[in-house]
Amino acid sequence: MDSTGPVVAVVGATGVVGREFLHVLEERRFPVSEVRLYASGRSAGESLVFRSREVVVQNLAQADFDGVDLVLSSPGASVSREFAPRAVAAGAVVVDNSSAFRMDPDVPLVVPEVNPEAARSHHGVIANPNCSTIQLVVVLWPIHRAFGLKRVVVSTYQAVSGAGRKAMEELMSQCVALLNQRPLRIERFPHQIAFNVLPQIDVFEEDGSTREEAKVVRESRKILGLPDLRIAATAVRVPVMNGHAESVNVETERPCPPEAVREVLSAAPGVVVHDDPAELAYPMPLLASGRDEVFVGRIRKDGSVENGVALWVCADNLRKGAALNAVQIAELLERGS
Amino acid sequence: MDSTGPVVAVVGATGVVGREFLHVLEERRFPVSEVRLYASGRSAGESLVFRSREVVVQNLAQADFDGVDLVLSSPGASVSREFAPRAVAAGAVVVDNSSAFRMDPDVPLVVPEVNPEAARSHHGVIANPNCSTIQLVVVLWPIHRAFGLKRVVVSTYQAVSGAGRKAMEELMSQCVALLNQRPLRIERFPHQIAFNVLPQIDVFEEDGSTREEAKVVRESRKILGLPDLRIAATAVRVPVMNGHAESVNVETERPCPPEAVREVLSAAPGVVVHDDPAELAYPMPLLASGRDEVFVGRIRKDGSVENGVALWVCADNLRKGAALNAVQIAELLERGS
Repeated sequence: MDSTGPVVAVVGATGVVGREFLHVLEERRFPVSEVRLYASGRSAGESLVFRSREVVVQNLAQADFDGVDLVLSSPGASVSREFAPRAVAAGAVVVDNSSAFRMDPDVPLVVPEVNPEAARSHHGVIANPNCSTIQLVVVLWPIHRAFGLKRVVVSTYQAVSGAGRKAMEELMSQCVALLNQRPLRIERFPHQIAFNVLPQIDVFEEDGSTREEAKVVRESRKILGLPDLRIAATAVRVPVMNGHAESVNVETERPCPPEAVREVLSAAPGVVVHDDPAELAYPMPLLASGRDEVFVGRIRKDGSVENGVALWVCADNLRKGAALNAVQIAELLERGS
Repeated sequence: MDSTGPVVAVVGATGVVGREFLHVLEERRFPVSEVRLYASGRSAGESLVFRSREVVVQNLAQADFDGVDLVLSSPGASVSREFAPRAVAAGAVVVDNSSAFRMDPDVPLVVPEVNPEAARSHHGVIANPNCSTIQLVVVLWPIHRAFGLKRVVVSTYQAVSGAGRKAMEELMSQCVALLNQRPLRIERFPHQIAFNVLPQIDVFEEDGSTREEAKVVRESRKILGLPDLRIAATAVRVPVMNGHAESVNVETERPCPPEAVREVLSAAPGVVVHDDPAELAYPMPLLASGRDEVFVGRIRKDGSVENGVALWVCADNLRKGAALNAVQIAELLERGS
């Protein structure tokens, strides 16, 4: 531990994102004088390793956040709504990965490559966007600055890790069951996910979109500071363990030839252009999984509009799509203080 | 066999589509007085069952097509280019599922629900479109007639069966290898397909699109009779055994409220609207596989344009996307004679 660093609490520590928080804090040598781990009563008593030391997970319901400077949290939205005000009252800043506060006009929704300045005006809570939104806006922002966004159409290919550890186990166990011709169990997804594709992530809204699709639309507008951005999203679950992919058609105000887009993206923070068709090189979930950057390729002209470009974007949804982005926000706060 | 029916030759009989030709001919009680099966020298001598009788596969190189009335073919494009003129010279009509003749202005490219009249003007060869194109135009055509197509953006989720039997085996063997922590082999696809997503189908064209994407654009325009249709496609392979899915954003000339689109599609031939979010009912590859119809769901407003609708389309790529569509073309010919 660092004697000078903040006291960091991780809420939802035993989940896939919670564990990723610990990995990312370690990897980035984030200064931490003490780490406290919290989860539901069910997981309390388990222990996780942070910087080679075992840390016992405590019951969130009993947390007083006394002396805690920073909370990195990734529980369900209802849990965040309950504990975050307590943590803030105790003097902590909460970087929350749930959807609880994202659209609250008083809560900044931050992707450090896009709107770092928003993090400054928080009142104790900063929201971490949805995974599929983060990798999209990291790529859209430099395109907007260079060419002006006019309309965006995105279709996603989302990994099961976005639905948590049990969902990953479900994909595996369904594959094993099918390969052994045994009956399979469906619990975490509405239908069989192994060797199938589900055009539903999260619940349905009244207008026929899913909440995941609504998140991409609303959160992208807020982060990019473009409340009227014309954007359409279709969110789809694919039988991939980790790493989200997105097919993106962008229409811009000014001409956006693929070479110019490639140049702009090559210079953009947090983006790796991986785009060499002759070498069959393009982003894939397998390539992006375990990596920090947002990978973009298949950059080509979309001739169906006057100024159009098509892109293929992949990122690790547990890292840049969740834990890494939250830690980057914490780094902004550390630098700002 | 039917004493009055045509003599039917199946070329590429041992492939996944070749076998599907036989299933579909049986199921639809297509009149056949004699069936002859052809494949490469490698597969000659194998036998397949048609209407409870074993039929020996012959070497295509030695076929004279003497007395053959109809050829249903699904070999590679170069094979079709070689054999089709011979078959036509011998008096047969060839319904060809390869890409060899599709864009030939003298060859009709037919989807019976869309442009059946085109089949009449053939000179011996009728081309069957690409799988991902067929299921798209079956849905776009009624929308065009009702509302006028302005622009289409499609991203596909394509099953491995579209790449043939060995590709299906590759997905399976990669899954087994991964689940047993053994090294896996990559032969049919450019990268690992198990638990991954590949934004490449077929080879790359000069403009950065893949040939599969170019096929969707060019073939859709030809079938719909809209040579200037504004359409953008991204073609993606997913680890699904059979059944292609497509996320489609349609912009129309006239208002296209989702209820009106649902009504139009419900009345369209070959289309099943499967769209009940409250019951978590929407098309999926698993649902469409083994079925004849094109399934459409997730019908909802695309508010990012003045008149827009978003759709999710699934079909069995071996049936409607290949064998069934070809047999339907043959049925048109039978009815017309």
